[in-house]
Amino acid sequence: MYQIGVDIGGTNIKIGLVDEQLEIVARSSIPFPQAAGEVVADKLAEAIRALLAEAGVTEQQLESIGIVIPGSIDPSGKTIIDAYNLGFHGVSFQPMMAGRFPKTPVYMANDANGAALAELYKGAFVGCKTAVLFTLGTGLGGGIILNGRMFNGGLNQGVELGHAYLVDGGEACTCGNHGCMEAYCSATGLARDGRTAMLAHPESMLAKMSGGDETRVDARLVIDCAKAGDETAKAVFDAYLGRLSSACASIFNILDPEVLAIGGGVCGAGDFLFEPLQQLVTDKCFYKTRGKLVPAVMGNDAGVIGAAMLRRDAEQ
Amino acid sequence: MYQIGVDIGGTNIKIGLVDEQLEIVARSSIPFPQAAGEVVADKLAEAIRALLAEAGVTEQQLESIGIVIPGSIDPSGKTIIDAYNLGFHGVSFQPMMAGRFPKTPVYMANDANGAALAELYKGAFVGCKTAVLFTLGTGLGGGIILNGRMFNGGLNQGVELGHAYLVDGGEACTCGNHGCMEAYCSATGLARDGRTAMLAHPESMLAKMSGGDETRVDARLVIDCAKAGDETAKAVFDAYLGRLSSACASIFNILDPEVLAIGGGVCGAGDFLFEPLQQLVTDKCFYKTRGKLVPAVMGNDAGVIGAAMLRRDAEQ
Repeated sequence: MYQIGVDIGGTNIKIGLVDEQLEIVARSSIPFPQAAGEVVADKLAEAIRALLAEAGVTEQQLESIGIVIPGSIDPSGKTIIDAYNLGFHGVSFQPMMAGRFPKTPVYMANDANGAALAELYKGAFVGCKTAVLFTLGTGLGGGIILNGRMFNGGLNQGVELGHAYLVDGGEACTCGNHGCMEAYCSATGLARDGRTAMLAHPESMLAKMSGGDETRVDARLVIDCAKAGDETAKAVFDAYLGRLSSACASIFNILDPEVLAIGGGVCGAGDFLFEPLQQLVTDKCFYKTRGKLVPAVMGNDAGVIGAAMLRRDAEQ
Repeated sequence: MYQIGVDIGGTNIKIGLVDEQLEIVARSSIPFPQAAGEVVADKLAEAIRALLAEAGVTEQQLESIGIVIPGSIDPSGKTIIDAYNLGFHGVSFQPMMAGRFPKTPVYMANDANGAALAELYKGAFVGCKTAVLFTLGTGLGGGIILNGRMFNGGLNQGVELGHAYLVDGGEACTCGNHGCMEAYCSATGLARDGRTAMLAHPESMLAKMSGGDETRVDARLVIDCAKAGDETAKAVFDAYLGRLSSACASIFNILDPEVLAIGGGVCGAGDFLFEPLQQLVTDKCFYKTRGKLVPAVMGNDAGVIGAAMLRRDAEQ
């Protein structure tokens, strides 16, 4: 038997056919049609049928279709409340897809939750009962596993780890508050502080490598310059580590997870990030017996695999 | 059938005999003997037997003995790792009590967790599946109810909500970090800021009422002066509300509880606290559909009732 996992993003929709060993045995991608829900559902249904046909899998062999989206979903799991990148607000997308595949259960979840589920079934959380994932990219996406299941909030309204406060009153966050974890720990936050430092230090490698052009300072450049020994970039990166370690310690103090995994582009820094971060987190945790950090491992497949596991999670 | 609930504090040990309607039908209190675990266990066992005899209840009618303590407990629930107010460090207190009552199951938990359990069975959380309690006193004690049960951390190592960061790098906390929720939201934090403001404003009511004596400025005086219209005290209280509302919003964004209850001495402020706080919390939550605050209701009985409910929680 097979599952279809769908990862809808603002640029592309990724579709994977997942077998019982959780391997993606066939995959495809279509551009996200900037269009109404019904149009997107039509295109997606067509692409799913094409992938099944190409793989020689019948709808009878399909156990579920799982979909993850970058946005908030109502507690029933049927309606996308807000997905800004998709232009979807109040779109009952799950019923649209269910109508197109009447014999197949269709599940829908937030993509950060889905990524945590992928780590649970195939990645860094295998065997864990309690685990937390931080995905550090444009924002800070967070997913919580509790008691071996996806935790979507006590009222099933979603978790928003990125919008827990870290420095109340600090940097402006996209949510309108000031000082959220996301404002400090996202790749965007690192790049913002890199730009400020670059402008203040025209002698720095950060300034030379970016040609003094703010738009060329991103998280990767800050990390590369810090690795290369640039003092300006190193100071920015160290401050980032300080904030990120505090965010991690908060999670350990609140939830006491077996493990906290960190994914997203910033993790490309590897040991340069993880080694000092682990030390800082252990120091900051209330109990020194907690604080195990690991890199997330599912990478670009997190969405598709997580989506494909939604049925299994729901049946737990 | 009956349960014995025991609330051990650094000054007194409170003991209650709790019936099936969760009423405390008999109670007693003994001074906490500043002594080794075995001595405390002897005195406590004696007091429990005296209370049972006085109430005419036999050990056969006793279903459990539950004990809550102000400290950290190892994941097995047997050993008090650290309870500074009791002078207990690495004391296997649960087996000591179990040895003295071989026919009765003995449970032990942290007192903040116990208080949340009391709210669940008899107080502000009745009927809830997910709820969080903040107890604002000397520190910020936090208890989490998840899926209708006490949540003691994913690894059962305890939750330390008070030591989640609120203003990373800010005020010093007793735990050694800077900027924990406890450092801002405890009654101690409010009193600290009241003292600073009093010294800076000798013309204030706060200064007059305390006679300029720092040691006389406590949370209650700040609240009383703020209620009476003292601008200095009002500014301190408003800043406190700002921080507390951010801490509450963090909890709603992470856990999405049905309700967050606030207990402890600060709650004596009543509507003067809750009305502006509710507005601030609703404004700060990522989803405006969440954020329901209520006062905790169990008061001084929270420990005894929570301890008495430990058996029921364990059997869930």
